Amino acid sequence: MKLTILGCYSATPKVSTHTTSQVLEMNNHMFLIDCGEGTQVELRRHKIKFNRIKHIFISHLHGDHFFGLVGLISTFRLLTRETDLHIYGPTGIKEVITLQMKLADSWTNYKLIFHELSSESSELIFEDELVEVHTIPLHHRVYTNGYLFKEKEGDRKLDIGAVLDANIDQVYYNKLKQGFDVINEDGKSIDNALVTTKANAVKSYAFCSDTLYKEDIVPIIKYADVLYHESTFLDKHAHLAPRTKHSTAKQAAKIAKLAHVKTLILGHYSSRYDNLEDFKTEAKTVFENVELAEDGKTFTF
Amino acid sequence: MKLTILGCYSATPKVSTHTTSQVLEMNNHMFLIDCGEGTQVELRRHKIKFNRIKHIFISHLHGDHFFGLVGLISTFRLLTRETDLHIYGPTGIKEVITLQMKLADSWTNYKLIFHELSSESSELIFEDELVEVHTIPLHHRVYTNGYLFKEKEGDRKLDIGAVLDANIDQVYYNKLKQGFDVINEDGKSIDNALVTTKANAVKSYAFCSDTLYKEDIVPIIKYADVLYHESTFLDKHAHLAPRTKHSTAKQAAKIAKLAHVKTLILGHYSSRYDNLEDFKTEAKTVFENVELAEDGKTFTF
Repeated sequence: MKLTILGCYSATPKVSTHTTSQVLEMNNHMFLIDCGEGTQVELRRHKIKFNRIKHIFISHLHGDHFFGLVGLISTFRLLTRETDLHIYGPTGIKEVITLQMKLADSWTNYKLIFHELSSESSELIFEDELVEVHTIPLHHRVYTNGYLFKEKEGDRKLDIGAVLDANIDQVYYNKLKQGFDVINEDGKSIDNALVTTKANAVKSYAFCSDTLYKEDIVPIIKYADVLYHESTFLDKHAHLAPRTKHSTAKQAAKIAKLAHVKTLILGHYSSRYDNLEDFKTEAKTVFENVELAEDGKTFTF
Repeated sequence: MKLTILGCYSATPKVSTHTTSQVLEMNNHMFLIDCGEGTQVELRRHKIKFNRIKHIFISHLHGDHFFGLVGLISTFRLLTRETDLHIYGPTGIKEVITLQMKLADSWTNYKLIFHELSSESSELIFEDELVEVHTIPLHHRVYTNGYLFKEKEGDRKLDIGAVLDANIDQVYYNKLKQGFDVINEDGKSIDNALVTTKANAVKSYAFCSDTLYKEDIVPIIKYADVLYHESTFLDKHAHLAPRTKHSTAKQAAKIAKLAHVKTLILGHYSSRYDNLEDFKTEAKTVFENVELAEDGKTFTF
């Protein structure tokens, strides 16, 4: 699981800081999460192949999380993309994108599939053999979802020496990977546990931005390997958090602690702060394993 | 008259090239012309004060000319702008901007005034004591206007030595600047031409992008000091120009020649070309005084 932060600042893009966007690589998927203005340029800067992006998840329709989406869709068209593109986001996202395509008289050749969200409860919105994605209802000034990305339990692994010793025909290998006992060439039942080992541990990533401190999300993100939680403010501006429906670094850490996640990544910093280390310092008073998002930073888990 | 090129490439923004946007300073006005994605960052890079921009002119609703507009409007709001902002552009521009403000539940505190254009003939769309702006109907794949910015004839200048010698009371100075003869302290009529000199020459700037080669625009832009004319293609790709409704460098030069402008600036280059000098070379075979737009370049006239 690899996470590339394309932008992690709030409000407006500047010369050296970008608004929210990140790429999550998980089980061969490349998910784009949020798409602030200029995201397409940051994707190019980080040499991320446009065609590998097939699913885009938009948290909410504030500009710093989605003003780059229409440009990315348009660039995909100019590059004669053929691959389907799925877009998940709040109701209204389809209207605003299609209106701009209509005004430009520029329709995509590839299939653009919108999945508009309006539920206030967590939903399973994407699933294949390898991964599932659930919404995490957040509490912000407009309808907002975080997203939980979870690898699925994979196959058990063959202990190939033991399998050969046990004289098992190849046709049973898939059954073994699926955890079943099988009959060997001598007609004897072979205990699965003797010839296979556990599947790789499944990983999960929870993206939660933007949101007020909201304990309701804890059950949804419980035991996630990595939690990205917005921390717009430091403690000295904690009074601004309820008004703007954002969180402080300490509040993000409190969520991380309650949810027993392994790692907390902070981001969505207000531009009023010069020193990001202060966010880490404050969060660490509550939760030990804290990382700071930074534009261009890559995390591998 | 000062022109700053923020971006002059066609199609899509890249790491080191930006789509169309430019700032024209004329008689204390600061006009923003087109607003591709990322324009707000380029304005910051060039330290252009946001509050000095009161008029934005959008040529057409293709993304490389206006996807940065909604972000700029939104940033102005976040910076608690109070100054009115006038936006000129094709019909539809108001709907797409207001839809995005509605979805974000983020309305501007400052006054946003849309001037939607739909005429196929040149119109006077802005005028004050110093400057006037006319549309230049272009021929592109969607409804498109260029813009002609013209200084107005200013006041005549006092020859202050001659004025004092002629014994003229200060209350008549404005009359003199306006070109009138006046009566001096001795009751004698003073010929205006003897105590004033000509006003500064008026300058004009014509922005024409995007467009097919279109001679109809020549009467509108005739004798302009500076013509920015799109030149998406070199001659070897001239066959692509009619299909995409763009122009070649030579065609831009032909318009410059027919209109007897003083200087031609080329821009809106297709990204297929590595060497911009080829555009200049080709244009110079038709018209002598050719300049190349480049991102970040400033022209003073």
